[in-house]
Amino acid sequence: MTALHTESKTASSSKKPLPPSDSQKQVSQFMQQIQDKICHGLEAADGLGKFQEDSWQREEGGGGRSRVMTNGNILEQGGVNFSEVWGKELPPSILKQRPEAAGHGFYATGTSMVLHPRSPYIPTVHLNYRYFEAGPVWWFGGGADLTPYYPFAEDAAHFHKTYQAACDRHHDQYYNVFKRWCDEYFYLKHRDETRGVGGLFFDYQDGTGEIYKGPHPDKAAAELSRELGDQPHRSWEDLFAFVQDCAGSFLDAYVPIIERRKGMEYGDRERDFQLYRRGRYVEFNLVYDRGTIFGLQTNGRTESILMSLPPLVRWQYGYTPEAGTPEAELYERFLKPQDWANWQP
Amino acid sequence: MTALHTESKTASSSKKPLPPSDSQKQVSQFMQQIQDKICHGLEAADGLGKFQEDSWQREEGGGGRSRVMTNGNILEQGGVNFSEVWGKELPPSILKQRPEAAGHGFYATGTSMVLHPRSPYIPTVHLNYRYFEAGPVWWFGGGADLTPYYPFAEDAAHFHKTYQAACDRHHDQYYNVFKRWCDEYFYLKHRDETRGVGGLFFDYQDGTGEIYKGPHPDKAAAELSRELGDQPHRSWEDLFAFVQDCAGSFLDAYVPIIERRKGMEYGDRERDFQLYRRGRYVEFNLVYDRGTIFGLQTNGRTESILMSLPPLVRWQYGYTPEAGTPEAELYERFLKPQDWANWQP
Repeated sequence: MTALHTESKTASSSKKPLPPSDSQKQVSQFMQQIQDKICHGLEAADGLGKFQEDSWQREEGGGGRSRVMTNGNILEQGGVNFSEVWGKELPPSILKQRPEAAGHGFYATGTSMVLHPRSPYIPTVHLNYRYFEAGPVWWFGGGADLTPYYPFAEDAAHFHKTYQAACDRHHDQYYNVFKRWCDEYFYLKHRDETRGVGGLFFDYQDGTGEIYKGPHPDKAAAELSRELGDQPHRSWEDLFAFVQDCAGSFLDAYVPIIERRKGMEYGDRERDFQLYRRGRYVEFNLVYDRGTIFGLQTNGRTESILMSLPPLVRWQYGYTPEAGTPEAELYERFLKPQDWANWQP
Repeated sequence: MTALHTESKTASSSKKPLPPSDSQKQVSQFMQQIQDKICHGLEAADGLGKFQEDSWQREEGGGGRSRVMTNGNILEQGGVNFSEVWGKELPPSILKQRPEAAGHGFYATGTSMVLHPRSPYIPTVHLNYRYFEAGPVWWFGGGADLTPYYPFAEDAAHFHKTYQAACDRHHDQYYNVFKRWCDEYFYLKHRDETRGVGGLFFDYQDGTGEIYKGPHPDKAAAELSRELGDQPHRSWEDLFAFVQDCAGSFLDAYVPIIERRKGMEYGDRERDFQLYRRGRYVEFNLVYDRGTIFGLQTNGRTESILMSLPPLVRWQYGYTPEAGTPEAELYERFLKPQDWANWQP
């Protein structure tokens, strides 16, 4: 780990801002703190469930601590996972995006979370922040996105406005670009649906060039990023501060939604639809999700990687919602990109 | 479709046996007949449920007929799908295996089936037979595999012996090679488990070279195939006759297992374990399965592709079976390759 670290700092060919000498330690400590903070906040909001922790080691290098709550008052299942891993080379899925990292050792640390509330009125939510170093390159990635079943525009707006405020404290275009990137990333091509109402997504943030570094140069986030042109280099410290602020905003973004919806009664119809829609979450995570693929490709801890999968799920052949129902409204309005930050009642 | 067909017949560089001029029609008719036969046989075995048919067209060319039974007496859900599609070029996942097909139009037809019985004592079962033509190449693929929850060695042995007999009518090494290929293909790397007790799997059968044409030259099926050396060319007709016999053996392989197990009572423990283990089926189909990936990559009909997913599924973080239980026996004995065809009571 120390050797890797030195290697990444002395790469003379890099035009990127340099991380400080204790970058890995700083980020790793923060990722653990944010896991602690989120778990405490969620236990308080749940009022009953407690997170159980498993610590684990990874044979090729590193390890983590997985925390899972099951059968809480609010959370049917919730997982918050910290991990820190290193190895000889990044897996192919990432090297394709960052070819400069080929042949170099890598270091990666991050915290990820998926919550599956019991009530169909409380959305499923996902969060992930991560940091990589590999030879001459380093970058931050992350974000959070909300997946309602029976959606409320004011909940979607609250979630987006909270993250918009966090973004705006660091760069006036972060929200615009990362919100669009999220809509683009959490998209199920085979269903022609977004995963939910989105939020933020960013990756490969190393302080250089355009803010958008995704795969689709024809998409909205890319266009916006291109319009802005190359941004002034942002330092490692600037990006880390942004990630800290963004990760630190999660409880403010989500807990008020729990408070608003937890008293609402529901029946079999709502529960059945929730279980059906949870199937889309499984489809996204197993077919498209970069974090899941990275984890499985790097011999990560399977139970920790797949703790994002819902506790109970239904599939139903040929289901379509009846026109004019709340279920139809989900599809028609909420599973398409919308400007939630500017929503007004 | 006609143009494609001519193209595939006149490719002069091919050393492969040539298909007859009406190959597509012959195979397509057979694939529909086998769908009919299986559906009738399953309705008879179920005694209550009926298959509902949806016919569909594919914009880029072709279409199919999907048949689904839900809430039968035996089958909680069962799907039997026929499809016949064509287009400008095979998707990347197949071109990687058959680079000679690049730049050529393709034709593909097949029947696939997944059954999810309600009783945890009756195994889930999958079957797929398919035929491709693309420029200078053509091939057959297919097989069937059994996934028990509370397994019985005699059921696994019956399934394997039935297919062994079908194989032996055509080639004395088909069973040995295709059984091993099945164990290799239906393997969940991230769980270090086979999907079930296996059966047969084969692909890229064009009558030339070694019987095994899979991706793992170090594995058992490859070794066996190599030992045999290049086999005498088998004609298109030989291979089609084998596929017909194999596909025609399904009801004999499976219905006796239903008959043996359908009277067995079970409770919440068995049902919960079944729902949990169904999660592995979802993981396999969405992460590894070639048919699913082909379907999604070729803009196939999503509902038909994903009708293999179970109607109700559980995930549970950190589950491990208790030592000495029937659940533990599944893991220890049945989710590893075994010589089921030679099993004796």
